[in-house]
Amino acid sequence: MSRKLHLALHPYGVGGPGQHGLWKDPRVAHDASIDINYYIQQAQAAEHALFDALFIVDSQFINATYPAHYLNRLEPLTLLSAVATHTRHVGLVGTASSTYNSPFNLARRFASLDLISGGRAGWNVVTSFDTGTSRNYGLDEHADYTTRYGRALEFVEVARGLWDSYEDDAFPADVAANVFLDPTKLHELNHVGEHFKVAGPLNVSRSAQGQPVIFQAGVSEEGRDLAARVAEGIYAPGGTLESAQEYYADIKRRTASYGRNPDHIKIFIHGGPVVAPTDEAAQRREREIAAEDNDLDRHLALLGRSFGAYDFSQHDLDAPFPDVAALAEKGGRTAATKIIERARRDNLTLRQVAESAADFRQSPFVGSPTTVADRIETWFGAGTFDGINLAFRTTEELAYFVDSVVPILQQRGLFRTEYEADTLRGNLGLPIPVNRHTQARQYVDAVGA
Amino acid sequence: MSRKLHLALHPYGVGGPGQHGLWKDPRVAHDASIDINYYIQQAQAAEHALFDALFIVDSQFINATYPAHYLNRLEPLTLLSAVATHTRHVGLVGTASSTYNSPFNLARRFASLDLISGGRAGWNVVTSFDTGTSRNYGLDEHADYTTRYGRALEFVEVARGLWDSYEDDAFPADVAANVFLDPTKLHELNHVGEHFKVAGPLNVSRSAQGQPVIFQAGVSEEGRDLAARVAEGIYAPGGTLESAQEYYADIKRRTASYGRNPDHIKIFIHGGPVVAPTDEAAQRREREIAAEDNDLDRHLALLGRSFGAYDFSQHDLDAPFPDVAALAEKGGRTAATKIIERARRDNLTLRQVAESAADFRQSPFVGSPTTVADRIETWFGAGTFDGINLAFRTTEELAYFVDSVVPILQQRGLFRTEYEADTLRGNLGLPIPVNRHTQARQYVDAVGA
Repeated sequence: MSRKLHLALHPYGVGGPGQHGLWKDPRVAHDASIDINYYIQQAQAAEHALFDALFIVDSQFINATYPAHYLNRLEPLTLLSAVATHTRHVGLVGTASSTYNSPFNLARRFASLDLISGGRAGWNVVTSFDTGTSRNYGLDEHADYTTRYGRALEFVEVARGLWDSYEDDAFPADVAANVFLDPTKLHELNHVGEHFKVAGPLNVSRSAQGQPVIFQAGVSEEGRDLAARVAEGIYAPGGTLESAQEYYADIKRRTASYGRNPDHIKIFIHGGPVVAPTDEAAQRREREIAAEDNDLDRHLALLGRSFGAYDFSQHDLDAPFPDVAALAEKGGRTAATKIIERARRDNLTLRQVAESAADFRQSPFVGSPTTVADRIETWFGAGTFDGINLAFRTTEELAYFVDSVVPILQQRGLFRTEYEADTLRGNLGLPIPVNRHTQARQYVDAVGA
Repeated sequence: MSRKLHLALHPYGVGGPGQHGLWKDPRVAHDASIDINYYIQQAQAAEHALFDALFIVDSQFINATYPAHYLNRLEPLTLLSAVATHTRHVGLVGTASSTYNSPFNLARRFASLDLISGGRAGWNVVTSFDTGTSRNYGLDEHADYTTRYGRALEFVEVARGLWDSYEDDAFPADVAANVFLDPTKLHELNHVGEHFKVAGPLNVSRSAQGQPVIFQAGVSEEGRDLAARVAEGIYAPGGTLESAQEYYADIKRRTASYGRNPDHIKIFIHGGPVVAPTDEAAQRREREIAAEDNDLDRHLALLGRSFGAYDFSQHDLDAPFPDVAALAEKGGRTAATKIIERARRDNLTLRQVAESAADFRQSPFVGSPTTVADRIETWFGAGTFDGINLAFRTTEELAYFVDSVVPILQQRGLFRTEYEADTLRGNLGLPIPVNRHTQARQYVDAVGA
């Protein structure tokens, strides 16, 4: 089949979504989230398994109630740059906020990572979920949804403009002619927009893949719209097969409506597979994991995150869910609204909401290796995703998936048996964008001819 | 002798101060300034030679008239993070602007580099010289001197506060007690100052050296004052033996006047040594290098840099130096003022100023290996520096210095024969700062006892 499955790895360190007690697992080092050797090993394992990318999450606000893996971790680009020189093929996707960075700085850093990695950089654009982040950047209030998404769109446009500062043949380095740079191939940007004024040019040239790949994680209307306009990869919410189909079709349709090729946006769902020799053993293991994460204080703190770090412990746990609709705009509006709607509809107490809103996500990929491979094939064939962002509790579980499930996927022709390219774009099947100035020149030449 | 000489390496890539034609040397790869393997090799060579640190310069503004090594280069922290995992002892000092960064972002990135490198990070604080940089960050005008230096001081104070967010024993990771973090060991900053409001805490713990080492390059009054207040390393202007002595004594005196131990600020001068088997050969080589760099257009562009990227080519080259005093405040005020004073005093034409203001710096370290070692010993003994920031045109010239001059310095007891420590602070002889909150607690305990 021509449509290809993509696999990425999200290394958990000492924890992850619904894995807040992971640090207690004796196989997990307590400093995994700040140990560069842990990430190098994870990246090398992902590359050995022919995965498309390593995906590094981020956040910039904590307090003492936050889960272990939020508390202490490496900044994603610093991390990925160290990983880059220990790998050759795997993509390196780092999360960075468009709300709390400057386009010139961030474009430069991703351009540098793209050169260091030989064209394997990706940027997961986030607008920052935690409202408390604003207070680390001199602002009392987090910007509202519309402002954050408007800024994100303009930010990506500016970054892409800066990344095209040099045409690919800008440096003849002709000793005899004493010409290092051909000045006609260096371009200022002179962007003036609603959120940014950036003159440029950027002092970094393009990599083998032209520009870093843009990822996004759009769930809300604004998020989906941003993704359809600029994203080349998406981290999708997952859920049931039907909801995943709906999301997939919606994103592809929106992308086409912006005049883009819908194949040039790759949709990844989160998969925390639980694989064991038998289906029964895998299901038992999944129940154990869910039980381990049953910590009411932690659930309350995470619930509060969706409402701007609101302290729910001040309310009676067994009274009806309090009226916090006014706080929804502050945090993750889509998540908060869903929580409120469900609490009203099912008449839930705060305790019930906290327990059910815990971010343990039921994985569709639970069972024996064959069961999991079957499930991946079914979902992939049903138009629910282009790739899976895989997360494992331990290095051992990653290795078991790679040794047992990946070969079945390969036998079925679903997954590659060797890398197609050395760049992230090449392996994702995304085109390498021609420099906009080169393109303009070629257009003028063609019209003139 | 107890006072120890320190050596750092400033890799030139395709060029450096007074080495603008270096890219034409057949031994220099045209992509050296964007090739991470070049930097890894330089760092490993520096470590093999027991140097204290690798030093990476930076700037964020270019136009087509800028020298080759400005045009296209890697962002320093991304670069150093990649170098970190290929070295074990050498310090990693990166340049970053306090004018065009946010303290929370930059503190996080240096803290990450410090963890990745096992306590070898250093930050060279610059306030940005090129006035054009402001236009890459939405500002029409570069901030004036006083604002830039006030912001730099407050920036360093905020970063240091953020770096102490976690006490060193903040993470008991006690599985039986279900305690990953001891919440009493996590501290908000809640800084409110003239330039910044930053709540914290930072989500990164301290490294083996406690905090990254602060470097600075103060020449002006404001710069010297900033250095004396917060710097632990300085890149000094050099010049003659007498001017270096004056600078050294002034900085040490100012540092003491702020209640700091003057041994805890290490002064490095720039040394681009020219070493050859005989003194005559070295002097001949130095003349060749100076002649190579004789390019009037380049000199005019560099002269303009000190006056806010002013285009001097619009003036008559052979008329008296134009009246540009009003532009001095915009660029590097100290440099610009010196140029104007000299032009007036000696009644120079624009051509004469451009040729003499070219930033070729005469090195004090030109000669045979013994001559250069003698000169280093004399200058070091005369109180002109604590260390030398060495720069070489090629890998071959670095290797020749390491093989010929370093052994003489070691025989004379001036330079180490093995690393004293695995951290940058340890090798520089700087103390590891006790976490401020731990210190406060210890003080209270002592007073209470």
